[in-house]
Amino acid sequence: MSLIVVGSMAFDAIETPFGKSDKIVGGAATYIAWCATNFTPVKQISVVGGDFPKEELKALSARGVDLDGVQIKKDEKSFFWSGKYHMDMNTRDTLVTELNVLGTFQPVVPDSFQDCEFLMLGNLAPSVQLSVIEQLKTKPKLIAMDTMNFWMDIAMTDLEKVLAKVDVLLVNDSEARQLSGQYSLVKAAAEIFKMGPKYLIIKKGEHGALLFHDKKVFYAPALPLEEVFDPTGAGDTFAGGFIGYLAKTKDISFESMKTAIIVGSAMASFSVEKFGTQRLREINKTDIDERIQEFVQLVNFDISLV
Amino acid sequence: MSLIVVGSMAFDAIETPFGKSDKIVGGAATYIAWCATNFTPVKQISVVGGDFPKEELKALSARGVDLDGVQIKKDEKSFFWSGKYHMDMNTRDTLVTELNVLGTFQPVVPDSFQDCEFLMLGNLAPSVQLSVIEQLKTKPKLIAMDTMNFWMDIAMTDLEKVLAKVDVLLVNDSEARQLSGQYSLVKAAAEIFKMGPKYLIIKKGEHGALLFHDKKVFYAPALPLEEVFDPTGAGDTFAGGFIGYLAKTKDISFESMKTAIIVGSAMASFSVEKFGTQRLREINKTDIDERIQEFVQLVNFDISLV
Repeated sequence: MSLIVVGSMAFDAIETPFGKSDKIVGGAATYIAWCATNFTPVKQISVVGGDFPKEELKALSARGVDLDGVQIKKDEKSFFWSGKYHMDMNTRDTLVTELNVLGTFQPVVPDSFQDCEFLMLGNLAPSVQLSVIEQLKTKPKLIAMDTMNFWMDIAMTDLEKVLAKVDVLLVNDSEARQLSGQYSLVKAAAEIFKMGPKYLIIKKGEHGALLFHDKKVFYAPALPLEEVFDPTGAGDTFAGGFIGYLAKTKDISFESMKTAIIVGSAMASFSVEKFGTQRLREINKTDIDERIQEFVQLVNFDISLV
Repeated sequence: MSLIVVGSMAFDAIETPFGKSDKIVGGAATYIAWCATNFTPVKQISVVGGDFPKEELKALSARGVDLDGVQIKKDEKSFFWSGKYHMDMNTRDTLVTELNVLGTFQPVVPDSFQDCEFLMLGNLAPSVQLSVIEQLKTKPKLIAMDTMNFWMDIAMTDLEKVLAKVDVLLVNDSEARQLSGQYSLVKAAAEIFKMGPKYLIIKKGEHGALLFHDKKVFYAPALPLEEVFDPTGAGDTFAGGFIGYLAKTKDISFESMKTAIIVGSAMASFSVEKFGTQRLREINKTDIDERIQEFVQLVNFDISLV
């Protein structure tokens, strides 16, 4: 049940209609790790600067995150992103992006990570994602990747190389449309399958998520919430729940993936309740089980009534 | 199992990215009737001009629609709407609105309609909706209403009077937000319950629909389709499936309403496959049963795996 997570570990400064955070710990791999460790240990591959809090690394380590693959560049600064969300929370303005250590990141897979069965490639330059895949001596049982429109705009050739090697792609609806050139998500899935992935997960924020495989489709709802306090990291948390569940069960059937995206949706619904990774640090197994039961109630209907 | 449907019967001219229709038969009550008659007979209350096709009235009559409540104003013209959809199909531009007979519509409930148990108020001026409720000597078992932002802008006082008398409100997400002054749909539901309705259905187009009642919520997905050819009337078709199913079963429990919005969603997924009411005229019980099974597959997951 070994899981490698690759992605950024960073600082975020976030403004939402409900408040403003200081510079807090964020980054795709941070969210994925905080979430996935509810289900399985994590082997982390990332890079941080000397400014990244030692306590955060200690907390992750105590949580079951093997940090042997995290490079610490003492004299450099960690990746920093600052953004502002509007009322609809589906769009955001980037205010600041400072790549810092991420600009020159060359991932190194430690020998002790070579037994990896599950690989989660968080959103990063496709060349970095590809480098990790190529360093693995044995192909993992399942490779899942996240990406974004930015890489489709500036690094499509690299992105196509990674897509050819992965099993599961996670993107949002506008990214699926951009990548495929198809407006219909059903047609978009068919196009994306030609590029390599056998499974496509389309994240739609408050509108839930779709899982496509072959001609099959599954719809996981999002839990309607009183307040979405901070959507930062919701997609990464979703990915962490998805891959964490699969790594725990080692079952990569379509049926298992359906349950895995419900788990991902449940975890994402926690993540948005507070700023940053705060809520993910508080919840326990009982909270998670209860939230998953809410999803069962949310979609369960009696077909015998029809 | 008597169901009264109130709403427009009209002409539409529709332009979508996939084509353009001539002036075809449309109107909320037309869609609702074509859909609901799959489940129960319909007693229709509406108004048309002398230009409304006799064959359409005959076809509806043959289908089980009692037209005694449909006024025919020989020397006047039917309501006409023309609109254009863009690629995302969730927004549309209105090109032409000619109220014609609808501008002076005074609904009259025939005596033979007085035994009505279910009342579906399609989108119309709230004063017209209210007039129908007030003409009924016995309160129906269930009153459901549709409305739109337009009436919130120009006839809020009338709208509040109708809301106070209905059990179920059907609106889209932006309308729920406008009506309640709340962005969160959970909070919007709580506000709208204070206005009268005990059930709130929020239609989100390709993102499905939510059913709120008390503190409970249910999420019905929309079926991902290769092509949404013409979304006109999808919301009315949804309402027709919802109320038709309830009128058939006479079960107005929350459990039954969950199944009813799945039925509504399934019917709406047919409606958008062709221009106007064409697809609704073609389908039979087997098609409907198969489509509902697709919805079961779409949301069904194995919780025992968690």
